[in-house]
Amino acid sequence: MREAAHARVVNAETRVLEPLSTVARSHGLVDVATRLDRIRRWMDADLDDLHDALKAAQADRTDLGRHAARHLLEQPGKRIRPLLVFLTARLGDPVSGEVVRDLAVAAELAHAATLLHDDVIDQGMERRGAPTARLVYGNSASVLGGDHLLIETLRRVERSGHPSLMRTIIDVIGHMVTAEALQLEVRGRFVPDEEVYQRVVAGKTAVLFCWAMRAGATAAGLSPRQIDILDRAGDRLGLAFQLVDDALDLADDPEITGKDTLLDLREGKLTWPLLIACRRDAGLVAQLQGVAAHPELLDDRKFAQDLRHRILQTGCVEATRIRATEAADEARAALAELPASAARDALDTVVEAAVERCR
Amino acid sequence: MREAAHARVVNAETRVLEPLSTVARSHGLVDVATRLDRIRRWMDADLDDLHDALKAAQADRTDLGRHAARHLLEQPGKRIRPLLVFLTARLGDPVSGEVVRDLAVAAELAHAATLLHDDVIDQGMERRGAPTARLVYGNSASVLGGDHLLIETLRRVERSGHPSLMRTIIDVIGHMVTAEALQLEVRGRFVPDEEVYQRVVAGKTAVLFCWAMRAGATAAGLSPRQIDILDRAGDRLGLAFQLVDDALDLADDPEITGKDTLLDLREGKLTWPLLIACRRDAGLVAQLQGVAAHPELLDDRKFAQDLRHRILQTGCVEATRIRATEAADEARAALAELPASAARDALDTVVEAAVERCR
Repeated sequence: MREAAHARVVNAETRVLEPLSTVARSHGLVDVATRLDRIRRWMDADLDDLHDALKAAQADRTDLGRHAARHLLEQPGKRIRPLLVFLTARLGDPVSGEVVRDLAVAAELAHAATLLHDDVIDQGMERRGAPTARLVYGNSASVLGGDHLLIETLRRVERSGHPSLMRTIIDVIGHMVTAEALQLEVRGRFVPDEEVYQRVVAGKTAVLFCWAMRAGATAAGLSPRQIDILDRAGDRLGLAFQLVDDALDLADDPEITGKDTLLDLREGKLTWPLLIACRRDAGLVAQLQGVAAHPELLDDRKFAQDLRHRILQTGCVEATRIRATEAADEARAALAELPASAARDALDTVVEAAVERCR
Repeated sequence: MREAAHARVVNAETRVLEPLSTVARSHGLVDVATRLDRIRRWMDADLDDLHDALKAAQADRTDLGRHAARHLLEQPGKRIRPLLVFLTARLGDPVSGEVVRDLAVAAELAHAATLLHDDVIDQGMERRGAPTARLVYGNSASVLGGDHLLIETLRRVERSGHPSLMRTIIDVIGHMVTAEALQLEVRGRFVPDEEVYQRVVAGKTAVLFCWAMRAGATAAGLSPRQIDILDRAGDRLGLAFQLVDDALDLADDPEITGKDTLLDLREGKLTWPLLIACRRDAGLVAQLQGVAAHPELLDDRKFAQDLRHRILQTGCVEATRIRATEAADEARAALAELPASAARDALDTVVEAAVERCR
């Protein structure tokens, strides 16, 4: 027991909400940071459970696939999906804390699984500030690691005893695979197409956010109407979250994002600010297409800096920030339809903090 | 409707049981072939349903992953797993033909999914006598194609409304992934270790055979005792089936096997005859390890022929055939514990035909 407590302190950097509150504080948003810290204390037992469950999921190192999975899970992540499960569960009265924890862990593992597959498909080099699992253990191990985590996800959802969540998590994984396939389709080309962007974001981010909200709400016995509201909030929050990630890719400080600047472009990913930039500066399209086909061009620092400068000059980051705030406002408006409660306020704070990341 | 009937005739070569009965006939086993033909007529409607459902599963070509999946499903396969679902279902009284068909299709799609992932991990070049999907559409597409098929598998099992089958198919997929990871671990090395062989066979073949039997039996409302018997029969049949495949890899006629000779060795797969050969001719170990590390050695025809000759001289194919027959006999002994019925006899014939393939 003491050892477990020690491990928790040592691994404090991977704890839920800490990345969000650190950023909020560094941006001078003391109020948001304080509220996040308060939420964290409120949910202390839940978050410790999550931490232990994720640790346990990493303990099995019997094969290379599991090594790849562990490598990813060890990196600090924001753990926002399990947090949403825990918070929505507190909107009602869950019969079993164990079920809620299983669903929270499932949400994080499903996310991690797609990252492992995604990095293979996008030939990703860096993830959460560390070399990708595929670079360390190979592409096949990364694929198998993702498969292991998907199986673990399904196991936990199955044993939760909610058939509707089983049905929906299968659909979610299906959407995520379809979105990955779409990304594969446009890899090495730069296609500034809004519809492609929407489909990728929906499949890669929003559906799992929705599911996390739905999972907590279902375990807590909320009404179908309330579940629908949370579904809508999840969809908007997912979009907001992705837009912020997109904006951060162009931001200056890799210490905060854990990513190289222009990493998304290097990996051939279409982001919202790049889409806006192309709309406002048509000459950029050909240049970005050239980079998508020859990402090694970005190795030339001067070239990369000039390109980034030209992109930023269009004001695309600000436009993305505005759109993210709008999406977050829509999420908060949906949440406002729910009865007032501490859990609802906490969800509201998390939405606020999520978009504050890129201010 | 006429068009559908026409499509069925055109695609006759992919029909269930035909590969088995053709082989039986070419081996002069007229009796087995006649019985198989009779089973096929008996199950005509079921098999047409299967054929149509697999066709429909190929119809969606919206992305590269689905193209890869279609490429594999188009190749003629033995379709033995769905056949086992249909036959075991006939041991009892299924409430819904649709459920049985869903489970049969799920068994085939789960199998196809692992082949798509397997070929990426083993860098397979040829499958069912055609270039692998990964060669045609790329590794990423093959991975995503497998993911698509797994999702389809889960969807069908979920809607069958049998939670025990959902739980077990998740375990089956978990075992299959673990077996693939184990194969990845020993790739490029030749490790003649019986335990590794057993674990790979169990994970890659036997668990899905067991599940197919269990699925049909569950849908048909058989008793837990009968399901246990079928589980045992499935395990033995799966082993027998794999042993026969192993033996065929060393057989002469690629027209029958749809594979190159020594293809398993080229892809670094450990097979039972190779294990036996090493036991009987210790000098072979170093040579096979050399080939595993440098499969291009097999491009030298003379070298490949000499090696194959040396392997065959140990009598390993005959030993494998004997072991396959023993495993099949165990499967048939298990089946004999069930009450006599036409479906039981048909299962018995399928087991018999499966091992006769390599006589």
